[in-house]
Amino acid sequence: MAVFRGVVRLFVCSLALSLLAAPVALADEGMWTLDGLPLDLLSEKYGFEPDRAWLERAQLAAVRFNDGGSGSFVGVNGLVLTNHHVAVGQLQKMSSAERDYVATGFYAEKPEDEIPCKDLELNVLVSMENVTDRVRAAVKDDMDEEEKVRARDAVRAAIEKESMDATGLRSDVISLYRGGEYWLYRYRKHTDVRLVWAPEKQAAYYGGDYDNFTYPRYDLDAALMRVYEDGKPLKVEHYFQINPEGLSQGDLVFVSGHPGGSDRLRTVRQLERQREFFPMMLSLIDRAKQALNDYAKGGPEQARRAEVMIFGLGNAQKAMSGQFEALAGEAVMQDRRIVENELRAKVNAEPALKAEYASAWEDIEELFDKHGEEMRRRTMRQILTTPFGARMPGWAVQLVLHGEEIEKPDAERLNGYHDSELEELKFYLTAPIPVYRDFEAALMEFTFDMALEELHHDDPLRAIVKGLGTPAEAAKKLSEGSKLDDPGVRKALVEGGREAVESSDDPLILWARKVAPLIREQEKWTKANWQSVTVPANEQIARARFAVHGKSAYPDATFSLRLAFGPARGYPMNGTLAPYKTTLYGLYDRALGFDNKGDWQLPQRFWDRQDALDMKTPVNFVCECDIIGGNSGSPVINRDGELVGLIFDGNIESLAGNYFFDPEHNRAVAVHAAYIVEALRKLYDAAPLADELVGKEG
Amino acid sequence: MAVFRGVVRLFVCSLALSLLAAPVALADEGMWTLDGLPLDLLSEKYGFEPDRAWLERAQLAAVRFNDGGSGSFVGVNGLVLTNHHVAVGQLQKMSSAERDYVATGFYAEKPEDEIPCKDLELNVLVSMENVTDRVRAAVKDDMDEEEKVRARDAVRAAIEKESMDATGLRSDVISLYRGGEYWLYRYRKHTDVRLVWAPEKQAAYYGGDYDNFTYPRYDLDAALMRVYEDGKPLKVEHYFQINPEGLSQGDLVFVSGHPGGSDRLRTVRQLERQREFFPMMLSLIDRAKQALNDYAKGGPEQARRAEVMIFGLGNAQKAMSGQFEALAGEAVMQDRRIVENELRAKVNAEPALKAEYASAWEDIEELFDKHGEEMRRRTMRQILTTPFGARMPGWAVQLVLHGEEIEKPDAERLNGYHDSELEELKFYLTAPIPVYRDFEAALMEFTFDMALEELHHDDPLRAIVKGLGTPAEAAKKLSEGSKLDDPGVRKALVEGGREAVESSDDPLILWARKVAPLIREQEKWTKANWQSVTVPANEQIARARFAVHGKSAYPDATFSLRLAFGPARGYPMNGTLAPYKTTLYGLYDRALGFDNKGDWQLPQRFWDRQDALDMKTPVNFVCECDIIGGNSGSPVINRDGELVGLIFDGNIESLAGNYFFDPEHNRAVAVHAAYIVEALRKLYDAAPLADELVGKEG
Repeated sequence: MAVFRGVVRLFVCSLALSLLAAPVALADEGMWTLDGLPLDLLSEKYGFEPDRAWLERAQLAAVRFNDGGSGSFVGVNGLVLTNHHVAVGQLQKMSSAERDYVATGFYAEKPEDEIPCKDLELNVLVSMENVTDRVRAAVKDDMDEEEKVRARDAVRAAIEKESMDATGLRSDVISLYRGGEYWLYRYRKHTDVRLVWAPEKQAAYYGGDYDNFTYPRYDLDAALMRVYEDGKPLKVEHYFQINPEGLSQGDLVFVSGHPGGSDRLRTVRQLERQREFFPMMLSLIDRAKQALNDYAKGGPEQARRAEVMIFGLGNAQKAMSGQFEALAGEAVMQDRRIVENELRAKVNAEPALKAEYASAWEDIEELFDKHGEEMRRRTMRQILTTPFGARMPGWAVQLVLHGEEIEKPDAERLNGYHDSELEELKFYLTAPIPVYRDFEAALMEFTFDMALEELHHDDPLRAIVKGLGTPAEAAKKLSEGSKLDDPGVRKALVEGGREAVESSDDPLILWARKVAPLIREQEKWTKANWQSVTVPANEQIARARFAVHGKSAYPDATFSLRLAFGPARGYPMNGTLAPYKTTLYGLYDRALGFDNKGDWQLPQRFWDRQDALDMKTPVNFVCECDIIGGNSGSPVINRDGELVGLIFDGNIESLAGNYFFDPEHNRAVAVHAAYIVEALRKLYDAAPLADELVGKEG
Repeated sequence: MAVFRGVVRLFVCSLALSLLAAPVALADEGMWTLDGLPLDLLSEKYGFEPDRAWLERAQLAAVRFNDGGSGSFVGVNGLVLTNHHVAVGQLQKMSSAERDYVATGFYAEKPEDEIPCKDLELNVLVSMENVTDRVRAAVKDDMDEEEKVRARDAVRAAIEKESMDATGLRSDVISLYRGGEYWLYRYRKHTDVRLVWAPEKQAAYYGGDYDNFTYPRYDLDAALMRVYEDGKPLKVEHYFQINPEGLSQGDLVFVSGHPGGSDRLRTVRQLERQREFFPMMLSLIDRAKQALNDYAKGGPEQARRAEVMIFGLGNAQKAMSGQFEALAGEAVMQDRRIVENELRAKVNAEPALKAEYASAWEDIEELFDKHGEEMRRRTMRQILTTPFGARMPGWAVQLVLHGEEIEKPDAERLNGYHDSELEELKFYLTAPIPVYRDFEAALMEFTFDMALEELHHDDPLRAIVKGLGTPAEAAKKLSEGSKLDDPGVRKALVEGGREAVESSDDPLILWARKVAPLIREQEKWTKANWQSVTVPANEQIARARFAVHGKSAYPDATFSLRLAFGPARGYPMNGTLAPYKTTLYGLYDRALGFDNKGDWQLPQRFWDRQDALDMKTPVNFVCECDIIGGNSGSPVINRDGELVGLIFDGNIESLAGNYFFDPEHNRAVAVHAAYIVEALRKLYDAAPLADELVGKEG
């Protein structure tokens, strides 16, 4: 479900709306920071009181996939478990026309067979520090609102730099409660990560786009990687032992992972605005899919190159359609209206609160009335500035901006180019990943087409695109003429800085130098006209919420570590109940129900080896844990801190979970630990790996 | 799904709204009379041209279960296949505290072990004759509207009597197109019917009330009976051979059965009125279920006595909730409004049509405005006149009315007591079925309670109920004092006529003599004030429809023989696709998904004998055939006239099918023929029966 978190994130960011703190959490709702767990609730409702070791493991065995996803350490020798769909980008980058690991799966019998990932950064959260006071202190009363926005960004970058210099750790200042608090999160960083095992996609995404976001489900959406340090498997102190028998119906379980983003605390007006954006986004996605499908018709190799992105777009389409449906119906909006009206009534009832906070909602309304339409146009331009999904044009723009930004003082740079961010930027810019010129060209042509159709006739981006000739000509010229597919060329341009960039005659660099000013202008406009209102307004609302409810709630998801909890339990569905788990029997039933065809065809090994399988083996299960995109690959752990499952999806009802949590129907869907172990042993000839997972001596 | 057709029928009848002809049928919609099949469509769309033998078999091998349900001959020796839930009433009547066939299932290894059904009448449609002209001729222009209603009923009874005397066949004059046409249907009648095989309810209704009306599904909802004549198995000329391998995905299949009633042609105003009735009916059902659940808590034998009715009420509740939801939403009403407005616009555009038909819709509106509220009160009284679900009070009322009515000329009698109906009446009145006084008392007390609560303070029925003491006292007195549980006593009262009834001091007879005048008054009021408007208005609308669309459509369902058709095909569900079939794998998956507990526990034999089963065996499947309650037990046949399945349900989406057919989502759910055969052989030690079904020599 998280493959295409990128698009969702882009969408969310481009709306540039930040938010406020949560109301008092009900039921088992909540994506809690580990320092703010609802320990009383866990104790009273479940008699569960985690000890220090349990909590440490929940934090330090959890892994963030920096490009969007979660995972966990599952063995002392650096073994990391995540979803196939989190790993698939790396699988594709390791593959070629001759060896397609996405199609065939992969297993390294010996350590030396493990394949290094080309541009993967894993993070482990090692500390959290509240830096709200320092951030607030940098924002002076006598600054105007735009200056405040800049000052806030600058102090965040400075804190990150200091921390990185002092500790050597990746250091991110993040906003929680949408401006209510600022925290410094420090991460251990791993970039030598190697693929150990992955099943074929047909087992991993069994049921394909159709079954995505549905339940009952039968997916082996799992992959194993190994973290290396100094050329040897990392010795891991904190990891989850897998227990294939550690889960029964109704058991309390936990999910320790990285939910990407939620919108539960947006104001009603912000949700209405978001709702207006969906048709535009859905149409964009639909057309992008069409363009990629056309490209994929070029042959099997073209199909291979496009399939991960097509799958991701399908995922985003289904997710957004569900979210749009939720916002378009009355139930969610009505619910949000009630919650908001309650808060506003309480603020208005108290003169001190009213004076301090009441204007925030009106400020947002006014902003949207005044600049909403302009922002909508700018958002479309921003989306179309860098060709959708293509690698080379994105690198080109980053290289141009990098050359210019690093010459400025850190506080004055564009976000993304601060000292604390440069290491990561260079890592991704110079990673030796495969690039396909014809694929890049297809994406450029699609984006240029869209720009000509969608943008206002005097939009500056439109002029740039038109200047290149027809979209097809432009795409051909840029993709064929550029050398940016060569990591060495990119490395030279990073290291050569502005001078190297300005003397380059690479057509993509020349194009990016025309585009870069638009990006700067957009950032400037947004800070001056948009964030100058939304940032303080959201902060006011967050503080109003603290004042009225206390800090008894969880912040909206921010792709930082969270713990969710709830029982493993079925739910009402389709006029009956969905079971809490599925089994191998159900997998074969679904295959035969479709005559073993299409998205429901089982890989041949499932037929050849069926006799060896214990058909009662649980395959997937659901739990009431509150998760969202980005949680993909998160471990599901029991009271004993054992790993009993692997989050890979939410049910279709959970798509409204972006806006509110419905404990009756919202379910997280996980691969059962027993299926992973059974499959490794009986289907993939990987018994040693199964032994490693369950803690048997090899 | 049809167990409780009785309640639905009561509901539909008490609304006393009759209807009009169908619009031109689209897609594979339609419950077609066999003399009016859309042969052009079948030929053009499917290249299927049934020959005379195919059509004869489709008609003469189909069987109607007169108490509500369908079935078919499946062997030369009188073997009849139907649903377990159609047969279950008989199973219960054969059972006792010592031998509960509902719980254990039943199989007669030898012919002499077959158990006679106590009050079952099966019908086979042997001829159809259009008698519209004769019925219309009996209705004279100079009669007032009430006289016309009576004349119409009288001529129908006379035609039936004549036909019965002439042919010895059961003869029913039925209204098709809701008054558009009248037809004489003649049936062969069988009352010596014996149970051969039924599985335990846990296999038949696997998933219980939860899974009822849902799909994917895993039910063995089947039973086999044998028809006897003169003490020997009936030699059958027309029957369906079972072919366990006669179905593939997408195959065109047919359902030949007896849909009970549909409301697709009601006017919008009639649907709005029906919608208003649902809350009342749902509350009544809910409270009846509560009363029966309380009774069932009395012990295992009480639970056994109540379970079939509880299941039936659950079924009705789920069906009606779905129908109510359909009417409460905008989609159905909007669709109906469009269809109606089109018809009315075409009528109004043509002066001749306008003069003849345009007033009908207004007449109905006016009637509802004038008498709607009175009719609502009367409907409630009518429902509560005879204690809900109880046997003895119903017999008492019939005995009292029988005694009085048979002294009148046939044309003046209440419907139900015409000469042509007396044989059937006596059959049911004197059948030796078991009656449980405490169960009867529980139902009486519930109904009396409801009457005191729901009826207007000066309602005459209320006075009768109050005159009996408290509801509990009354129920005790009537149930304990009455001898009507004895079939001999009932027989004497039938044969003794009015004199025997009037001299009886049986407390239920005395009570029934007080109630009978209310029933007469209700019939009189309804004919004079309600049917006098609705019957001609509906007939006008029906004729308007013929005038505008021609007779190119199917009549609404009337529990008469119909043929539906469509491909076996899955459908979009829950964000993905439902498969066209399920298999034994899925049955075990669903059991284990619920830890083999509750409604999803598999009978022990399924575990003991699993190794013998071919797990790939298809269990249930769906097809696009247009069916509705009453179709339960209908054969699903292929182009070769082979039986490939057994209808037992519609999916939850099909509940709106009462009002319109949605080919995308509406599906009939059938037991696959292969499951029946596999289960007989491997689970029920009934290989000879399986051989008989597939036509192997015994």
